[in-house]
This record gives sequence, structure tokens and C-alpha cells, in this order.
Amino acid sequence: MIRPKTAPAPLTEIWRGPIAESVHLGHAVICGPGGDVIEAWGDPDVTAYPRSSCKMIQALPLIESGAADAAGLGPEQLALACASHQGDPIHTGRVEAWVTGLGLGEDDLRCGSHMPYGEETAHALIRAGDKPCQLHNNCSGKHAGFLTLNRHLAGHADYVDLDHPVQRACLAAFEEVTGESSPGYGIDGCSAPNFLGSLRGMGRAMAYFATATEGADARQTAAARLRDAMIAHPDLVAGEGRACTLLMRACTEPVALKTGAEGFFIAILPQRGIGIALKIADGATRGAECAIATLLVRLGALDADHPSARMFMNKVLTNCRGLKVGAIRPVPGLLR
Amino acid sequence: MIRPKTAPAPLTEIWRGPIAESVHLGHAVICGPGGDVIEAWGDPDVTAYPRSSCKMIQALPLIESGAADAAGLGPEQLALACASHQGDPIHTGRVEAWVTGLGLGEDDLRCGSHMPYGEETAHALIRAGDKPCQLHNNCSGKHAGFLTLNRHLAGHADYVDLDHPVQRACLAAFEEVTGESSPGYGIDGCSAPNFLGSLRGMGRAMAYFATATEGADARQTAAARLRDAMIAHPDLVAGEGRACTLLMRACTEPVALKTGAEGFFIAILPQRGIGIALKIADGATRGAECAIATLLVRLGALDADHPSARMFMNKVLTNCRGLKVGAIRPVPGLLR
Repeated sequence: MIRPKTAPAPLTEIWRGPIAESVHLGHAVICGPGGDVIEAWGDPDVTAYPRSSCKMIQALPLIESGAADAAGLGPEQLALACASHQGDPIHTGRVEAWVTGLGLGEDDLRCGSHMPYGEETAHALIRAGDKPCQLHNNCSGKHAGFLTLNRHLAGHADYVDLDHPVQRACLAAFEEVTGESSPGYGIDGCSAPNFLGSLRGMGRAMAYFATATEGADARQTAAARLRDAMIAHPDLVAGEGRACTLLMRACTEPVALKTGAEGFFIAILPQRGIGIALKIADGATRGAECAIATLLVRLGALDADHPSARMFMNKVLTNCRGLKVGAIRPVPGLLR
Repeated sequence: MIRPKTAPAPLTEIWRGPIAESVHLGHAVICGPGGDVIEAWGDPDVTAYPRSSCKMIQALPLIESGAADAAGLGPEQLALACASHQGDPIHTGRVEAWVTGLGLGEDDLRCGSHMPYGEETAHALIRAGDKPCQLHNNCSGKHAGFLTLNRHLAGHADYVDLDHPVQRACLAAFEEVTGESSPGYGIDGCSAPNFLGSLRGMGRAMAYFATATEGADARQTAAARLRDAMIAHPDLVAGEGRACTLLMRACTEPVALKTGAEGFFIAILPQRGIGIALKIADGATRGAECAIATLLVRLGALDADHPSARMFMNKVLTNCRGLKVGAIRPVPGLLR
């Protein structure tokens, strides 16, 4: 096991009555243009899985290979390739049309299925007595991207295999934009390999996405197109009510945000050339959402009084009778 | 804010591929027959909300006042008074009959409603287009106990008020069995006050429940009846598939177990006169479930090879396609 050299720092507190009932520790880096760490909490060199926070990196080969243009993909499909969507009709309909347009079907996906995160959509499935299909998987857009690249490369059907050309291209892109050799991998919820890297490496990669210029070279063009597709379609990157969507809409400048399982979160701030990467050590999403909102306010890219900022940075916890019983807040000092 | 004097100790790890992706730190005490701490991890003096882990303490006045006997409550009702049930028909039906037997109705409860934890029951409500009622609240048995005591004391209807005789009796019982003055309170999910105490105090209280003898005195009789009711009805204390129910059934000796929100868990081992209390610092239930199962195995009250022990102590994490991708495990050294 790879333990952090520096202990994780307190980032988010869960208050109830006079005490913080629970606390989330974590690691965070803010990287400037050029990729150097300009601020850090905890251990910037901690090794972690970025999980879904690296989908924009996994989508680089899709564009660089020429597969995206050959398939006529536009910003909506590129945003979905980077998404952890909640399986609402605006997501599943577009992914289905994309896969069908490739001459393929839902059963060509290798992501598996889970109940959609969107409550209304999930309840509709339950009421109809239906089970979710692979299109509802939050990663189905990433997998439609994998299918598109795979058709272009004429690879075999099991495109999630570690030694498949699709995943080899993802690993190469990951190592190049993080500037590191990946020390290993795990299998993600959607069956694709997820490569280990340092938090510093992910922050550097996000700063690269922030500074990438369309037309500069093939990689920068791909990175800029993916970043701008995410910023143009916050509803496709996650869904109504979810942190990425609400906070991207709330920011006072263009920002791309992406959550990952087990408390990972990234931000890309193109106007400043800044990238953020953070990992909550215990894996809690509520801790990561509060911390990323707070860092965006700290940088001046989000107004602390915006309802969506308050929803994650100073979330009021209500109980079963609607009484205010506590709050989720950043630790003192994280904001400024 | 009351911070722990000693840092929380690593208790549970979430593995994926070659690394522990996330780790849960926490505090734990094992208290022997006179209430002294015989083993501890982290800070035994940490101040925490026991949340639903103290329901058997909140039920002491129900019996000691004579209210339970006056209402003819049996072990099933007493188990439900200590329960965080999942709102299945075996729970809601019994609570409804209990409240009706008092000449009261569902709208006399003050717990509020939430979707039942039992998936089958929740889906049935969604399919029927129904909303959950207060009977589905995991605390409805505790509140039926409050209503029973309140009728006996002829108190006013808002029995969850801090200065209501029902809650004053709960605070007195809490301070007496923990052996401490409570430094404050928070409002729980079900609107009742939840009193702060040290982990050591909760461990001492659980050792008291473990050693209590029916007939010795009024409090010991009440404690023994509640403990034995929980042990007799593991299905009423939580529900099918849930940690308390499965682990109580799996133990090789009588054990009462009770989870609490935000990563609290207690165990009462009457054959040994031992009580356990633990709190995961970040509030994660998965961390608390693994830690309590591990401590039961450590003490010899649970066989590590029992499927329910493995389910929490060495839980295999599978992904959307059923592939094994990781595991939830205790940190090395917690088991022995």
C-alpha cells in the first residue's frame, strides 16, 4: 500500500448542535499555468485513483486519433464522453443515438448497468417494472467514446481490456498529461482500467487542460475541445441538482468541473490557466463537493452567496420534519 | 468545537487494485464488567453523538416509569423501541398496532417521515405512487415508546421538546448510565434531542447493559429487558440484509448490536459483561460496520468465516458487471 507522506488535512466539517460531528480529511493541489503546485493541503504527492475525474483525459485519444471527427461528434457527444451523467432522458437519448449512429447497439457497451442517479428517472423505471440498461450507466458516454475509438482502430470487442489499443492509448495520454509513469491500476465501476497517479500529476494535467489552445497542436486542440464542450454543456456532464452541473453554472467565469468516485474532484479554470485536484481520504462525496466549492470561492471564480455555492459550502442539514439540525462547512482557513 | 485529544486511529480500509483507495479513521473502546476501558483505539475521551446507538438508553424511562407494563408492552415492542428499522411491514405493522393500542394515531408521532430503508418496501411505495408516512421512519418504534411514556406522564403533545418530561427523563438516564454530565445536545434526524457524551461513557453504559440482571433493581431490570428483547428480535432491531440483524444472528453467543448515524456502533456482550462503542471520525457507515464486526471476531464472539462476518469484515466490492474490483477490510492489527 502507498501511504501519504504528509497526513491529510481537515477540509470539510459536518456540524450538528455545538460540535462538528464528523470531519473529512483530504489532499488538494492548485496548479498554475505550467503545472507547478501553487497551493497545497495535505500531501500533494499522495497516490490516488482519479476515477471519473479523469474522463477528459480518457477522451483525448478519441479526438487525437481522428475518430471523433470521422464519426462527426460535436460538443454534446464530447461533453458526454467526459460525463458522469445521471441517466436522465437527455443523457440516455443522446448516448443511444450516438451508439446507433456507429452502427452498434446498447449491448456493445461494456460498462454494465446501474440504477440511474436521477431520482425521477429511477422512479419511472421502478413504476414501469423495468430494469436499468447500460445506457443508464453514468459512464455510458465515456464508453460510447471508447466504442467510437475502437471502431476507428478496428480493435476487438472487449475494449476495456488493459492491453486493448483503446486502453493503451488512454494510459499513454494519462502518463503524458500528468507527466508521470503510472504505478498501477484498478478496475473502475464501469470495468475500464483506472490508472493511479499523484495528486500533483492530476493538478498538472488539469492546468494543461486549462491552458490548452485549439489549433496549437493536436493534443492541445483535443484538450481545449473537451474542456469547452464540458463548459458548454453542464447539464450533460452530470445532471439537474448535481454538484458539477450546479457549480459550473454558478461560476462567474468559464470553469469545467468533474467529480470522481471516492471523494475525488477536479476543476479547470481556463481564464487563469489553473487546475485543481483534490481527494478526500475517506472517499466521501459530501466532503469533496464542499471542498471544491470552497476552493472556487477562494480563487474568486464563484460567489459565496450564490445559492449553489451555499448549497455545497454551507449546506444546511434538515431532518425528517424539515428542522435545521446542522450544516456542512469548510474548515476555518480553507476559504481564505 | 470539541476536538479529540488523541488522533483517530485507522480502522477500515477500502481496497481497489494495489492500494487502499480510502481509509476510515475512528475511535473505539471495549469496556469490561465494571465499566473500565480494557482496550481502546484513537481517543477514548472523544465527545460524540451516539445517535441511534443510544436508543436502548432512551427506552430506560419507558420501563422504569411503569409505562411499558401499564401498556402491556412485550419484547417485540421493546426491541422496536431500540430499533432503527427499515420500514418493512413487520416493523410498520407492529408500530401501527402499538400506537393504535394507545388510542393514538400516526399523526401523534413527531418523528417525521422518510423513504423506508428496505428496498422492496420503498419500491412498492413508488409503484403505488404513495409517499412514506411516519410509521416508515426508522425511529418510529422509539417514538411509539416516547408516546407510551408521555401518556403515562400526561405530558403535552410535543414530546420531543428538550424540556418535556420525556426528554428530561432520557437525559437523566443517559447521564446516569454513562456516568457523566452531558456537555450539550443536537437535534437528531427524528427531531428528538441526542445528547453528547464521551466514547468512554457510552462504552461504560453498554457494559452496564451487558451486566444488568433482571430483578436486581428497577434500572438493571429495565436494561436487561431491553437488551434481551434486542437479542430475541434481531429482525425488528434493523431488518433483512442489514448489519445489526445479520451480525446479531451470526454471533456465537447472545450479542445486542446497534448502529447509529455518522459512523457510531455499539455492542453489548452479556456473557462477558462487555460493552463496545465506536465512532468513525468521518461518519461512514461502511467503516463502522467493518470495525464492529472485526472487534466481535477479535473477542471471539463471531466466527470470521461466517458469511455475515465476511460480508462486513472482508466485503468484496463488485462493479456494474459483477467483476471483483476491491474489498472493505479492517486495518492490519485490528483483528488481532
